[in-house]
Amino acid sequence: MNEQDLGTRVDQANRTAVERMVEARPMLTTVAMAGEVIPGLGERQLLHAGPPIDWQRASGPLRGAIIGALLLEGWAQTQEEARSLAQSGEIDLAPCHHFGCAGPMAGVISPSMAVYVIENVTHGNRAFSNLNEGYGKVLRYGAYSSEVLAKLRWMNGAMAGLLKAALEEGGAAGESSEGLDMRALLAEALHMGDEGHNRNKAGSILFTKLLAPRIARVAQEREEAARVLAFLGDNALSVLNPMMAAAKAMADAAHGQEASTIVTAMARNGTDFGIRVSGLGEEWFTAPAATPDGLYFSGFSAADANPDIGDSTITETAGFGAFAMAAAPAIVQFVSGKPADAITATLEMYEITAGEHPHLTIPSLDFRGTPVGIDLRKVVELGITPRVNTGIAHREAGIGQIGAGLVRPPMEIFESALIAFDQRYG
Amino acid sequence: MNEQDLGTRVDQANRTAVERMVEARPMLTTVAMAGEVIPGLGERQLLHAGPPIDWQRASGPLRGAIIGALLLEGWAQTQEEARSLAQSGEIDLAPCHHFGCAGPMAGVISPSMAVYVIENVTHGNRAFSNLNEGYGKVLRYGAYSSEVLAKLRWMNGAMAGLLKAALEEGGAAGESSEGLDMRALLAEALHMGDEGHNRNKAGSILFTKLLAPRIARVAQEREEAARVLAFLGDNALSVLNPMMAAAKAMADAAHGQEASTIVTAMARNGTDFGIRVSGLGEEWFTAPAATPDGLYFSGFSAADANPDIGDSTITETAGFGAFAMAAAPAIVQFVSGKPADAITATLEMYEITAGEHPHLTIPSLDFRGTPVGIDLRKVVELGITPRVNTGIAHREAGIGQIGAGLVRPPMEIFESALIAFDQRYG
Repeated sequence: MNEQDLGTRVDQANRTAVERMVEARPMLTTVAMAGEVIPGLGERQLLHAGPPIDWQRASGPLRGAIIGALLLEGWAQTQEEARSLAQSGEIDLAPCHHFGCAGPMAGVISPSMAVYVIENVTHGNRAFSNLNEGYGKVLRYGAYSSEVLAKLRWMNGAMAGLLKAALEEGGAAGESSEGLDMRALLAEALHMGDEGHNRNKAGSILFTKLLAPRIARVAQEREEAARVLAFLGDNALSVLNPMMAAAKAMADAAHGQEASTIVTAMARNGTDFGIRVSGLGEEWFTAPAATPDGLYFSGFSAADANPDIGDSTITETAGFGAFAMAAAPAIVQFVSGKPADAITATLEMYEITAGEHPHLTIPSLDFRGTPVGIDLRKVVELGITPRVNTGIAHREAGIGQIGAGLVRPPMEIFESALIAFDQRYG
Repeated sequence: MNEQDLGTRVDQANRTAVERMVEARPMLTTVAMAGEVIPGLGERQLLHAGPPIDWQRASGPLRGAIIGALLLEGWAQTQEEARSLAQSGEIDLAPCHHFGCAGPMAGVISPSMAVYVIENVTHGNRAFSNLNEGYGKVLRYGAYSSEVLAKLRWMNGAMAGLLKAALEEGGAAGESSEGLDMRALLAEALHMGDEGHNRNKAGSILFTKLLAPRIARVAQEREEAARVLAFLGDNALSVLNPMMAAAKAMADAAHGQEASTIVTAMARNGTDFGIRVSGLGEEWFTAPAATPDGLYFSGFSAADANPDIGDSTITETAGFGAFAMAAAPAIVQFVSGKPADAITATLEMYEITAGEHPHLTIPSLDFRGTPVGIDLRKVVELGITPRVNTGIAHREAGIGQIGAGLVRPPMEIFESALIAFDQRYG
């Protein structure tokens, strides 16, 4: 095919991919055990963030989260046992993305963890993410102390049970429900100073207020209802995980379009940054992940930082997060920079995207739609890589979050993907 | 005193007034019956928004709200009886502001209505406001049908009881509480796209999420808890009333400073717009209220609009509302204009204010403090009147809200106040 014809074909495929991405309508329908609801998840399998990786190449926080999950599942009784088991190769490690999942930071999901279930009611695909643990020492940042595990047991037990009952309860008496509309929630949150990735303050309380009457109605114990409501409401990241699953459902809807150069996954495992492209099947294009620039918590510095980690870049893939930063000027207090930088970040992302989101708008840009649908061609042609807002993990297992900041994927993964695209379609 | 000396004295007095206003820390401590908690409120007395007015000069929405309150109290059994009673002069009408209260729109508060109780823990003064009824046909816009009264009975009964128990419950088990910090809540809401007067979406869900665990903990009936949580969470104005009481507590703390030209109350009764000034005692300076410019709900136009009404201008008086509009670009969809106009509105208000709020900041203006403390002298010298965001009521009793928009007080009230100031201190 000549260059002009291919260009037209790619443009058409990209329009279709982006339209599918923005018209996907992800509804949060329930909470269920990962092992029961995620198709294909093995009994002795652990999912992790980013492209494929084994224990030997795994970074500190991912190793810590694997150790924690092995202890949580009871597959190991001590840290040492867990390390040996992980090293032995007996436990299968697989990317969340291979199972319709998206996990923040280390992103480890094991069979007895509870997951949010998202249904894209437009196209019929499903996606999943685990429950957010809040701040401090948490598994997703590689911490695995007994308090971390105790909290996870409560979350995956009592809290998950209450969330499941609340979500399946269907709202006010007699009202039927197809779930909570996560795209509508996000649209509202973007008008309330969130960007939906690193700033989810508004989204998390919108989420809490939607669940609150349902939880109050279904709870068998008042103290347990109060505990869950306080945990959801006080955690400014409560909505991050179901929103990541929503973004995964949106991005998956755009995947598999023949001849499309739209990026449908960006993900990091703490060692490598990987992308997938709509028209390039299941292949990952990877390169070493960079270390974020940002603000560090007291007592930590860039020297302590792990390279970029987590599936949360699915938010940028779906047209929000750093791409919607103009909606969230207050975020610069957390990730560094000035409010004007937040505007610049979004404006730059219009350069490398194929569309503007009809359902997600930014008030300060005169309600312009967010930039959506990263076009591999534009990234390489213009030399502009996607922007990412992210948390920063300590490089050692067992410590946790030490800051938050900004990062970009390595350019070479877009270049290798474009070479692969040209080989296949050129 | 010569002009220069007076200028210095006024500057000093204004610094003190503004410092008291911004350092006031209004805590929401409980909910109680107006007749039991508002000092001096008579048994057969009704409070209303704005400066003093009698039935003869009252506008349609204020008359409607008075009729509704008389029916609610059982002092009249029919609309006709209520009108006769109001006309007879037997019922004492008095401004909310004379009783430490602030009431939105018609602002009618009667003895058996529940009120939020705000304690300014810095200076010890208290303020009150009734519970917000939500949208649609509501008493504060002059509607008084049986549904309006039935909802008020539920709010002042079951809902108020649950709010009181929740607020007095003191948070998590064993935790003592001095109440909910309304200034901290507002500061957070201004970083989430609210301006605190006409846009309270974020504040209302922050309010709901703070109350949710407490309500779940104290509720005797799960269905009632669910109903209250849904009512609070779905009403984007839930927090307006306690926030107005918080603003009243702030403004009152600045009142009564000898030789201060800071405006400590702006209020409208639907006929007149009135202000009070810190150094001018209890006197009101009034003139006919203007009609807001704005956006009308389907089927209504400016011809249907009542002149400006309500005590909610206490928010602008205390340095938020229209003064913080730069924080709320999305509000222009509701009150008219473009996002850039929201920035302009705030920038203009710095011209006529004596300070910048140390606790209320605006992300998009590089976290600059909101303009606070309207200086009478600057208003008159520069010919710039304060900006106000407001709801628009239908001019007839019994109908309700028909739009929202922007308005300014008449310049002549500032001119007459300045003349009075010069006579007293010049």
